[in-house]
Amino acid sequence: MTLLSGGLSSLLESIFHPRSVAIVGRSDPWVRWLLKFGYRGRLYAIHPHYEEVAGLKVYSTLRDVPEPVDLAILNVPAPLFRGIIQDCGANGVKAVTSPACGFSEAGTEEGKGLEAEISNLARRLGIRIIGPNCIGIYCPDSGLTFCDGMSCQKGQLGYISQSGTNATRLVRLANLRGIYFSKAIAYGNACDLGASDFIEYFMNDPETEIVAAYIEGVKDGRRFFNVVKECAKKKPIIILKGGLTNAGSRATSSHTGSLGGIETTWSAFFKQTGAIRADSVEEITDIAMAILYLPCPRGRRVAILGSGAGGGVALADACERAGLSVPPLLDETRKDVEKVLPPVGGSARNPVDGGPPVPSSSVIRKGLRLVAADSQIDFIMVHMNVDLAWFFDSLDELRERISDLISVARSLSKPTAVVLSATPGTEEQNVLSEAQQRCLEAHLPVYTTYEGAAKGTAKFINYREFIGGISA
Amino acid sequence: MTLLSGGLSSLLESIFHPRSVAIVGRSDPWVRWLLKFGYRGRLYAIHPHYEEVAGLKVYSTLRDVPEPVDLAILNVPAPLFRGIIQDCGANGVKAVTSPACGFSEAGTEEGKGLEAEISNLARRLGIRIIGPNCIGIYCPDSGLTFCDGMSCQKGQLGYISQSGTNATRLVRLANLRGIYFSKAIAYGNACDLGASDFIEYFMNDPETEIVAAYIEGVKDGRRFFNVVKECAKKKPIIILKGGLTNAGSRATSSHTGSLGGIETTWSAFFKQTGAIRADSVEEITDIAMAILYLPCPRGRRVAILGSGAGGGVALADACERAGLSVPPLLDETRKDVEKVLPPVGGSARNPVDGGPPVPSSSVIRKGLRLVAADSQIDFIMVHMNVDLAWFFDSLDELRERISDLISVARSLSKPTAVVLSATPGTEEQNVLSEAQQRCLEAHLPVYTTYEGAAKGTAKFINYREFIGGISA
Repeated sequence: MTLLSGGLSSLLESIFHPRSVAIVGRSDPWVRWLLKFGYRGRLYAIHPHYEEVAGLKVYSTLRDVPEPVDLAILNVPAPLFRGIIQDCGANGVKAVTSPACGFSEAGTEEGKGLEAEISNLARRLGIRIIGPNCIGIYCPDSGLTFCDGMSCQKGQLGYISQSGTNATRLVRLANLRGIYFSKAIAYGNACDLGASDFIEYFMNDPETEIVAAYIEGVKDGRRFFNVVKECAKKKPIIILKGGLTNAGSRATSSHTGSLGGIETTWSAFFKQTGAIRADSVEEITDIAMAILYLPCPRGRRVAILGSGAGGGVALADACERAGLSVPPLLDETRKDVEKVLPPVGGSARNPVDGGPPVPSSSVIRKGLRLVAADSQIDFIMVHMNVDLAWFFDSLDELRERISDLISVARSLSKPTAVVLSATPGTEEQNVLSEAQQRCLEAHLPVYTTYEGAAKGTAKFINYREFIGGISA
Repeated sequence: MTLLSGGLSSLLESIFHPRSVAIVGRSDPWVRWLLKFGYRGRLYAIHPHYEEVAGLKVYSTLRDVPEPVDLAILNVPAPLFRGIIQDCGANGVKAVTSPACGFSEAGTEEGKGLEAEISNLARRLGIRIIGPNCIGIYCPDSGLTFCDGMSCQKGQLGYISQSGTNATRLVRLANLRGIYFSKAIAYGNACDLGASDFIEYFMNDPETEIVAAYIEGVKDGRRFFNVVKECAKKKPIIILKGGLTNAGSRATSSHTGSLGGIETTWSAFFKQTGAIRADSVEEITDIAMAILYLPCPRGRRVAILGSGAGGGVALADACERAGLSVPPLLDETRKDVEKVLPPVGGSARNPVDGGPPVPSSSVIRKGLRLVAADSQIDFIMVHMNVDLAWFFDSLDELRERISDLISVARSLSKPTAVVLSATPGTEEQNVLSEAQQRCLEAHLPVYTTYEGAAKGTAKFINYREFIGGISA
């Protein structure tokens, strides 16, 4: 069943911004989460055996609720669905979502049969389903969340995930890197609304600048291909496909009842649609970071400058492996850079080593300006290993050096990415977290791994080339 | 110049356990670090213009020091080396190391000439050189360190690194994961002693169980090949080769004056020597974790059990990509596992999903025992996404669930690795750090990324197959 775009769009609008939400069955912790997260609509709790939960009156059934509900969260076991969906119909519920298992993902005839029966019943009653076997909707703007601990801040990323774990993981990872969401949907078995519907919605959603998706499998292959291809022309779409190996594929079929695709099919899919392939949840954030914060370079030639020659080597290797080019600097640039480096211990080739273990602010400032002026260079990566408390008298000194680096980086004439690495769990990691924040305020993309910086920026540039944004 | 093994061994012994160390030139911060780290020998500071540093008497030159010094750290500019090396000869210094730059790594005729001259002079005077352009020696047993913040705890890893940044990074990363070092050497330009010498030493060092190396380039290719091959027969040797791409290779030649090799040459090198290839400093710790904590599985067939189906899919994909096999469980195992899973929401295929979002302790206990008894399974990976504060009433509840998982894992009849992931910077990361510690106390290898667990264990198994430890 496919709705026209207009109908689908207005349906999903009312799912993301429901005027009223009912939680049917065990209402804790959903009621608690929604109250804490600040859901702005009317909230109803439905349970046959309770009278009150978290200060809310509890209704025995949806039939008693005094208004038609936009979204019902069914926190009840699968066998109760027949009756509850009938109640939803009587109330006039627009859409349901549910964490309940025991449907097609169980791999049993019984589970598949129940899912088909429920889908048919809902369709007859005019109710749309997200799920089952999913955690549902996260929308900071309306105060909906699918679990505790998600940021209330609105952002530009629209995310769909067939897995609840990957949904909450990406939101947390991204939030910690300063990337926020317009909306996210964890949609599980996709027995009714599925990836193609959500992507079509995000493609046209003015609040969403980037679409990201964790996909285990799709049932409407041709439509999915077309929607993704159309979306990629309008805005970047990043896809992480789970289950590309034999074992992974077997797992996805039991997880969400989907047929996983094989590597070659999906490689062709990415090539033809222009969707950006991510290989992990972390990589989704790396790519989104480049899209959101890196002005698009004219090409893939990067100059690397920083501290720690070992780090420069690793970053150069990572860049070339990711398909970027790290060319030698022009002779004239090299000679000029040599003049600003310390007499010994630096290197004016590309990667430029400002002298161990930390280049002075003056070297960073002058060196970066010279490198950015090189006509054969399209963009810059500045890197510093922040594990340097031992080198400075105080962490404040380290902070100052990083501040200098950021203020120079923001003033350059070419797109610039910052790579700051620190060992997790050390005191320098706190300095790093502050520095990440300052980079984003200065509108500089900031990475904490060499591979992340290389792949994130390379995949962004690949995408822009695909859609014709780069002539190089 | 090659010493016989006996001579080399005793020389390096006295470099790692020097009875006396002299710091020539700017003595801060080295003196401060060594005093804090607890260096157990006699310490001399040498400077023409000071009388006292950190409570130590300062000598004007090495000629005034009342005993021959085992190790001199030359913290002076390159042009002063001629005179200082003469002083070393007069004192009877056994070996010198130095952070000074401006030698062959500078790429100038002058730098190369000076390095050759200094090497010749030292050889005539019977002095061995580690470096220059390096941070030198870390040996917790004798209280030597190459910078502040390294652990005083002794361990089984012997590490050589051509880069100072990578030396300190690996030590810190490994320390935080509970992996410690017998000795480490950051050796820079290798104008005298080099990778082959150090590996030969570690190969025979009873305190070293695993050898790890960050190599930018080698000058004695044939000997290096032979030494690494011989070492791999005796104990695992993990090598990270920096500069495998064009740009990386150009960078290594300016960093330590070495000629970097190309990808194909080094691929053949790994295949023929049995050295374990690591592609990042992080991966060295992943591989060492498996070697130190995973009893060697009989083969590469892994069963995966845990929480969060999305995580199971990702781990299964990572395992197959790393060359492990994640086969379906035997029919009888599957049926038995199904009986202990919750009625809905789990999966008894491989990966086994214990039910979202966290399987009960009973499911973990019974499920893992059944899976471990499957004759087609060689080892087990148990995984849990620890980002679960939202699911529990308190972090203590989360801690208890992880404790249960660890206590079951340690009691299994087959080798077992634990994979615990959390978002960095969250309160769950503290829980994760404690859990990592408890895993190691229970002698279970513990990983925080799917790729790390997959590659670390796969490369360990590959190595054991290479040396004939596995018949599968």
